[in-house]
Amino acid sequence: MSDATPQARPYLPRTARFRDGADTPRAFLEECLDAVARLEPTVGAFTVIEAGAARRAADAATARWRDNRPLSPVDGMPVGVKDIIDTADMDTAMGSALFAGHRPRFDAASVQGLRESGCVVLGKTVTTEFASTEPRGTRNPWDTSRTPGGSSSGSAAAVAAGMVAAALGTQVVGSILRPSGYCGVHGFKPGVGGINRGGSLDFLSQSTTGPIAASLADTWAVAAAVAGRVGGDPGYPGLVGPETLPSPVAPRRLALLQGPGWSVVEDAAREALEDALRRLRDAGVTVITAEASPELRALEDALAGTMEIVTGINAWEWRWPLNSFLARDAAAVSEAARRRAAMANAMTQRDYAALLRRRDEARAAHARLSGQCDALVSITAPGAAPVGLQSTGNPVFAAPSSMLGAPALALPLLRAEGLPLGFQLVGFRDGDAELFALANGVEAILGA
Amino acid sequence: MSDATPQARPYLPRTARFRDGADTPRAFLEECLDAVARLEPTVGAFTVIEAGAARRAADAATARWRDNRPLSPVDGMPVGVKDIIDTADMDTAMGSALFAGHRPRFDAASVQGLRESGCVVLGKTVTTEFASTEPRGTRNPWDTSRTPGGSSSGSAAAVAAGMVAAALGTQVVGSILRPSGYCGVHGFKPGVGGINRGGSLDFLSQSTTGPIAASLADTWAVAAAVAGRVGGDPGYPGLVGPETLPSPVAPRRLALLQGPGWSVVEDAAREALEDALRRLRDAGVTVITAEASPELRALEDALAGTMEIVTGINAWEWRWPLNSFLARDAAAVSEAARRRAAMANAMTQRDYAALLRRRDEARAAHARLSGQCDALVSITAPGAAPVGLQSTGNPVFAAPSSMLGAPALALPLLRAEGLPLGFQLVGFRDGDAELFALANGVEAILGA
Repeated sequence: MSDATPQARPYLPRTARFRDGADTPRAFLEECLDAVARLEPTVGAFTVIEAGAARRAADAATARWRDNRPLSPVDGMPVGVKDIIDTADMDTAMGSALFAGHRPRFDAASVQGLRESGCVVLGKTVTTEFASTEPRGTRNPWDTSRTPGGSSSGSAAAVAAGMVAAALGTQVVGSILRPSGYCGVHGFKPGVGGINRGGSLDFLSQSTTGPIAASLADTWAVAAAVAGRVGGDPGYPGLVGPETLPSPVAPRRLALLQGPGWSVVEDAAREALEDALRRLRDAGVTVITAEASPELRALEDALAGTMEIVTGINAWEWRWPLNSFLARDAAAVSEAARRRAAMANAMTQRDYAALLRRRDEARAAHARLSGQCDALVSITAPGAAPVGLQSTGNPVFAAPSSMLGAPALALPLLRAEGLPLGFQLVGFRDGDAELFALANGVEAILGA
Repeated sequence: MSDATPQARPYLPRTARFRDGADTPRAFLEECLDAVARLEPTVGAFTVIEAGAARRAADAATARWRDNRPLSPVDGMPVGVKDIIDTADMDTAMGSALFAGHRPRFDAASVQGLRESGCVVLGKTVTTEFASTEPRGTRNPWDTSRTPGGSSSGSAAAVAAGMVAAALGTQVVGSILRPSGYCGVHGFKPGVGGINRGGSLDFLSQSTTGPIAASLADTWAVAAAVAGRVGGDPGYPGLVGPETLPSPVAPRRLALLQGPGWSVVEDAAREALEDALRRLRDAGVTVITAEASPELRALEDALAGTMEIVTGINAWEWRWPLNSFLARDAAAVSEAARRRAAMANAMTQRDYAALLRRRDEARAAHARLSGQCDALVSITAPGAAPVGLQSTGNPVFAAPSSMLGAPALALPLLRAEGLPLGFQLVGFRDGDAELFALANGVEAILGA
């Protein structure tokens, strides 16, 4: 796990060590390839690894740093790309036999952003089918009898195992925060529109592309590098901020979001969260609860139907292309996807419009909290990663920030059953950089 | 041209004649194929024609109507699909050598919607390169020395020549309204989000997919059939309304939008518009001008920079994928596209954000007019289609409704130089069906 531990200077990405020659992209990549050799046969985080092309890219980055002309602060960083995001030089199979051997003609926007930043794309990381629920066998590096979570299963596991420094994931319900929490790494779900999703099967209205990385500094630097080059989704400027991690801002008021997951929270997870909140209070932070804040109560009420709303919205939005997938080869599509298509086909535009209104109401309730607290705090899952690979775990704790369209972070600050559990911070719309500054301050208190 | 004339009962699509057996999908298709045989060698509207598959689909539709179980009011309608929209059974070349021989794995959302409605997809229609400016040789059926307009060149020309009853186009600046006007057919640019754009290279923030058709009734019925089945863009319910053309609503107050194109309007076009406005006034319609309405004046002012704003927004949003296209084969990309990439690469997220704010201001100015008038009226181009195939004409009259994100219609009601010119109606956001009811009323006055 040593490659996955945060750096001593958490305000700079590890690639900062390239500047004075203390490290080089090629040496970093070879460390990653060593980890691949040791761990990948067990973990199964990748669908494709292109070591040769990665070495060439790393050598080019090494030369740029040597000549003092890096393309970005993350030039030379070894990264993975979730296999629902198009790559022109590697197959993109979407976790589905329907796309076996599919080679896109062009890189996705986020991949173009990585390459323009100098990142070294080592390979494609395992995704559940269509970034939805059907798991594809990746194991949790902390306990290989357990799931790494999903749908960005391979991205979280590869970072946790030190096989890459960062990897792109996508989240529409809980697909970045949950696996990041289970795997003890940092995961960032940008606010809606924050990073350009062009060229990925990541088209749902509340979906986002975001990085999973070994440190908070790496996480931010990758997000900023990509958004600075390819922007946000069309119509959104995309997340903005400095090229490297914003300076820490001490938290003052945090709102405890129990959310619809609280009824299934496990004791170990609840105790871990309560302990963290105690330490924050000891450091002078005010923790706001729904008992004391009618606005937070209103948000909790608006979030009570999160899973129903999100499931319905996503089903309708999958009406296309799922029906086209089924028309081509229904047998190649999972039972879960077929159920989703059936749900979509039973819906109307008016049903969908009603769900969008409920989502808007929750977003409005969230916005009304913005003057009261710096962020919401929660956990990323009801407990540690479940045993078994048949399920990627319960997304209920990650779903609220997805529905709210808000930026959210999984921070590897908690433990349950001796395994990692994510501490979740949820910011406000257009406050992605502010959320990182706050997370930097929170990690200073809780100890990254 | 006879196939392109509106039906005697303009409130029903021509496919309504299938109900009592007065016509059949197969007979309709054979009419279209006759027009193809006669006109396509000169007009060049298609990139692909699949007559065999179309005949099989038409026969299936004929059987459904005979058994009184049509899939929709447009079951059996022969249609074309702009060649930037994915089709699983026909190549999709995007008007570019970069995509020569590209066969998508799945139908785009709009194509899925057409097929679920029973429409008979006859072929793919010529688009300019990437639905932008570089023309691809289609000729105007009314005068083959002239452009049909673009970027939906083939869709407008194919409908005008009676080779299909309707065709899908896309518009980000003027790509549906302008060619529809030049070709004397109906063209509909939905409000932003109105029809699901999934699976098309039509990803810009103000882009829309919409039908071009021989009659107002066909135009609406196709739009409603598609949106009812695959919805709008993710996050939008999509346009809603009856399955067939809304009943006519008599116009009461129309606002004359001169827009940034007025300085280049040609005499014949201005006179044609003024004559139409005179006839509307004679019918009791109040025509509001900017001299009499400060709100309309404010909108005109906000639209003065339309071309600059739209050009900048579109350039930034093309940063991806244009740079990925250039990385693959720069020589296969037009000089116009290379200029656009250079413009994009000189921009920052902040430049783009500033342009989005200016667009939002124009949209707000438009919304403030909603109590004052039923719609804006304009023309679709400065004059008749220009001679020559090197340019698809000036989009300046179509660009305002694109920037406003508003639904807009090109109605074939005007003439200039003895050639067609579109009368343009611009509605308000979420008022797509209301705009058709109004257009129905306007056509009753001006004579379709």
